[in-house]
Amino acid sequence: MAHHEAGHAIAASLLANADPLDKVTIIPRGRALGATELIPEEEHYNLRRSYVYDRIGVMLGGRAAEKLIFEEVSSGAEDDLKQATRLARHMVTHWGMSEKLGPVAFRRGEEHIFLGREMTQQRDFSEHTARLIDDEIGSLLKRIEQEVSTLLQQHRPQLEALASALLEKETLEADEIQSIIGRAQPSARVIRS
Amino acid sequence: MAHHEAGHAIAASLLANADPLDKVTIIPRGRALGATELIPEEEHYNLRRSYVYDRIGVMLGGRAAEKLIFEEVSSGAEDDLKQATRLARHMVTHWGMSEKLGPVAFRRGEEHIFLGREMTQQRDFSEHTARLIDDEIGSLLKRIEQEVSTLLQQHRPQLEALASALLEKETLEADEIQSIIGRAQPSARVIRS
Amino acid sequence: MAHHEAGHAIAASLLANADPLDKVTIIPRGRALGATELIPEEEHYNLRRSYVYDRIGVMLGGRAAEKLIFEEVSSGAEDDLKQATRLARHMVTHWGMSEKLGPVAFRRGEEHIFLGREMTQQRDFSEHTARLIDDEIGSLLKRIEQEVSTLLQQHRPQLEALASALLEKETLEADEIQSIIGRAQPSARVIRS
Amino acid sequence: MAHHEAGHAIAASLLANADPLDKVTIIPRGRALGATELIPEEEHYNLRRSYVYDRIGVMLGGRAAEKLIFEEVSSGAEDDLKQATRLARHMVTHWGMSEKLGPVAFRRGEEHIFLGREMTQQRDFSEHTARLIDDEIGSLLKRIEQEVSTLLQQHRPQLEALASALLEKETLEADEIQSIIGRAQPSARVIRS
Amino acid sequence: MAHHEAGHAIAASLLANADPLDKVTIIPRGRALGATELIPEEEHYNLRRSYVYDRIGVMLGGRAAEKLIFEEVSSGAEDDLKQATRLARHMVTHWGMSEKLGPVAFRRGEEHIFLGREMTQQRDFSEHTARLIDDEIGSLLKRIEQEVSTLLQQHRPQLEALASALLEKETLEADEIQSIIGRAQPSARVIRS
Amino acid sequence: MAHHEAGHAIAASLLANADPLDKVTIIPRGRALGATELIPEEEHYNLRRSYVYDRIGVMLGGRAAEKLIFEEVSSGAEDDLKQATRLARHMVTHWGMSEKLGPVAFRRGEEHIFLGREMTQQRDFSEHTARLIDDEIGSLLKRIEQEVSTLLQQHRPQLEALASALLEKETLEADEIQSIIGRAQPSARVIRS
Repeated sequence: MAHHEAGHAIAASLLANADPLDKVTIIPRGRALGATELIPEEEHYNLRRSYVYDRIGVMLGGRAAEKLIFEEVSSGAEDDLKQATRLARHMVTHWGMSEKLGPVAFRRGEEHIFLGREMTQQRDFSEHTARLIDDEIGSLLKRIEQEVSTLLQQHRPQLEALASALLEKETLEADEIQSIIGRAQPSARVIRS
Repeated sequence: MAHHEAGHAIAASLLANADPLDKVTIIPRGRALGATELIPEEEHYNLRRSYVYDRIGVMLGGRAAEKLIFEEVSSGAEDDLKQATRLARHMVTHWGMSEKLGPVAFRRGEEHIFLGREMTQQRDFSEHTARLIDDEIGSLLKRIEQEVSTLLQQHRPQLEALASALLEKETLEADEIQSIIGRAQPSARVIRS
Repeated sequence: MAHHEAGHAIAASLLANADPLDKVTIIPRGRALGATELIPEEEHYNLRRSYVYDRIGVMLGGRAAEKLIFEEVSSGAEDDLKQATRLARHMVTHWGMSEKLGPVAFRRGEEHIFLGREMTQQRDFSEHTARLIDDEIGSLLKRIEQEVSTLLQQHRPQLEALASALLEKETLEADEIQSIIGRAQPSARVIRS
Repeated sequence: MAHHEAGHAIAASLLANADPLDKVTIIPRGRALGATELIPEEEHYNLRRSYVYDRIGVMLGGRAAEKLIFEEVSSGAEDDLKQATRLARHMVTHWGMSEKLGPVAFRRGEEHIFLGREMTQQRDFSEHTARLIDDEIGSLLKRIEQEVSTLLQQHRPQLEALASALLEKETLEADEIQSIIGRAQPSARVIRS
Repeated sequence: MAHHEAGHAIAASLLANADPLDKVTIIPRGRALGATELIPEEEHYNLRRSYVYDRIGVMLGGRAAEKLIFEEVSSGAEDDLKQATRLARHMVTHWGMSEKLGPVAFRRGEEHIFLGREMTQQRDFSEHTARLIDDEIGSLLKRIEQEVSTLLQQHRPQLEALASALLEKETLEADEIQSIIGRAQPSARVIRS
Repeated sequence: MAHHEAGHAIAASLLANADPLDKVTIIPRGRALGATELIPEEEHYNLRRSYVYDRIGVMLGGRAAEKLIFEEVSSGAEDDLKQATRLARHMVTHWGMSEKLGPVAFRRGEEHIFLGREMTQQRDFSEHTARLIDDEIGSLLKRIEQEVSTLLQQHRPQLEALASALLEKETLEADEIQSIIGRAQPSARVIRS
């Protein structure tokens, strides 16, 4: 668990467009076994592609850390995957952020959930388009996970140090995290679409 | 945001069949972060293909401006995409404006929404036709976006001047917009189907 | 609008199996911007294929006139397309009028609409058959539109004369229409299946 | 209409496994414009394939007569097609009468219609199987129609005589029909599967 | 009808893993025109593949007898086909008895029928898998029917004797059936998967 | 039945990542004809891939034993298959444990079952993805079954000894089971993904 949260924290610290870290904890709260909290710098009404991209990167950081350290994943990333997939789906279907699919909005029932009528609404696109959407979501998430994995591999000492500190103190504030991660500056990563 | 609205305004001014501009603002209202308002010249019971085509062009102008200036898009175009897709879908499925699909009306549940029975109605065409419809909608929107992008590239100084003026004054009336855009006359653009 | 109604009227006058014309008007009524009224010669319990064929031809005459005169179509043909598609679908799915699909009835939910149970009924044929049906409907409508377009091209002077008269008098009775269309006799058109 | 009913009657008289004719009428009753009535020889709990095959033949006889005499079909065969399709579908999906699909029962919702729950039940077979079923139904109906058409062509004088008699007397009893059809004996037709 | 029941009875007597015969009757009861009753040797909580296989064989015996004697099938096997298909479907989708599909459970809505919620539940597998399932069910039923047909051909004299006895006495007890079928011992049939 | 439970028990004892055995019984309880009970070592909020993998292995052990001893399977494994499939599906669709599908969450209606709205929710992925998911689930379950079968073949004497002891004593505690299985140590099995 400590490595999982440390993975989120390293990703949040090093990805250029992510919100800044607030604190990390491995004290369980509700169903969650730990948490990595970020400070949104401003109200995000308008999410740029690069920001969404790195936000997904932070979400996948926990799982990438598990893979790196334990060589296998666990069910603990279930919520991360759900949220990352949801964001990736929005990029492709609502925000026109896939070059391949272009400036088109694809509607499913999920948006009207508060009207109590979501369940049986018909999607308004073809099966073929559904497949293109799935392919775009899948390759987007795989690419981001790959980038985060590389980032964590390059910062494995910091990842392990952060996990150890978490096991010892359970909660770490932003400044403690920064001093552990140390000199590592946000990478000047170029976003490819 | 200023560039986004300026993109709409430039497109509205320069596309030959668009309704004339009324005013542009970057003062948020409700969920909208800004607005470009047009004056419909007459009640449009009867929408010609060229008019609908340019109306979509105005809708996509905001996103095209973001791409041109920031080299990436944002979630701020979500409503534009939804409306542009909806119009393009009507062109193809209700108004017979796709040469490929021809003089056929394709029905989905959406029209009966006021009867409270929209949700589970069956579409009355095949999956294969659904794919043809998607392809027509997609290529129509990509073509229009491409044309608007070209138009904005050709008028980048006016776009930047309009965005600066908006940041300074927040709201611009039609005559102010015209004096900024200046000599640029509506292009004698030929509509290709 | 005048040209649209004139297109319906020319088609109704010249197609061999159409009901005779009663009058044409461009005075809006309700949602309709104009109307072409025919006199059904007898109660049609039994619709012959050639009759249905020409009835669709009259429906598509308005749109064909717009295309001929303005070189583009408008949303004004929406209801015509809906009704023409509905008739073409009946020819193929209920009346066995497609050689390709043969003497088979294809059921969807739409018929039970008065029982309030139409919405979720399952169609009783395969996706592949749905595609064959769509292809038959599409090619039937394209063929009829092509024939009506040819007919209007051959009678363009009459079409323009009728539109002018409509703009002047707003409503024309059958005998006025006939005298404008003049010598043009109903064509001895052979119906091909 | 007279020819349509005469077609049913000829088919009923000449198909080897059909129920015997009772009477034929062209007096409209309710929605029906005429009727051909047969005497079921016994209660049919158990329908043999050859019996069902010829029953469909009688149903398609009206349409086949229209085609033969007028060289086009009319919407008057709508109910015939619906019933013939329904029987053919039962042959294939409930009675195992298709060699290709074999001794398998294919369920859709239609059977539970009296429980008020038919509407949304899921069919329990794949799209691919749905296509095989459609193909079997289609080729079965086309083959039967072909055989009935041939039968009517071979008995065209009787068909025309029967239609004339119907136009004159409106209703014909079994013995009158037999005397008109005359020497034509039930054909010793072999049923091919 | 007598031949149909005799077919069930012969199959029940000669298939190695079937429950033993109790009696056979051609006296109609309710909707059924006859019945073949077996004695389940023990409560079957646990059904072995070979037992289910032969139980289907008994079900298809009636139809196989009709085919053998009359060279065509009738609608009388409708319930047999429904039950045989249901069992074959369970073998493939619930009991992992298809080598091809393997140790996987495939769920549809039918199991929750007593909760009143069966109707609209989504199947939890793909169309492609649905086709594999259909193919397995179809080939299983065809193979079993083939084996039962061969068995009946080899015992045609017994089949005809049993049918004659049924027509004479209407109901036959197990010992009467055995004495008619005589020397024929249960075949040492090997079940192939 | 004894062999079925013995198969579960052997798998539970020998798979490296399974929870330890508590006891095994062939005394029926409710619908179950026997039971193999394990002691979860800790609350499993976080299930590692290797743990889930071996848990499925234990589930399939009963069926694998039936196949090994009787050379055919029975309907008794129905619940095992249902649970194993459910876990395998979660590995692929919720926990990102399929390399092929990657870090994506695939949603169906099943999760909202307690809100009473599960039934008609639309799955949010394409048919093509549904097929990939099915393929992953199928090959995962086949691979695990193969491994468990090999394990049981290698320990056939222990399997038979355990089944005999169960038939004699009906219930066996963990220490009795261990003394029967004897020297067999948990295998150092490597999990391949």
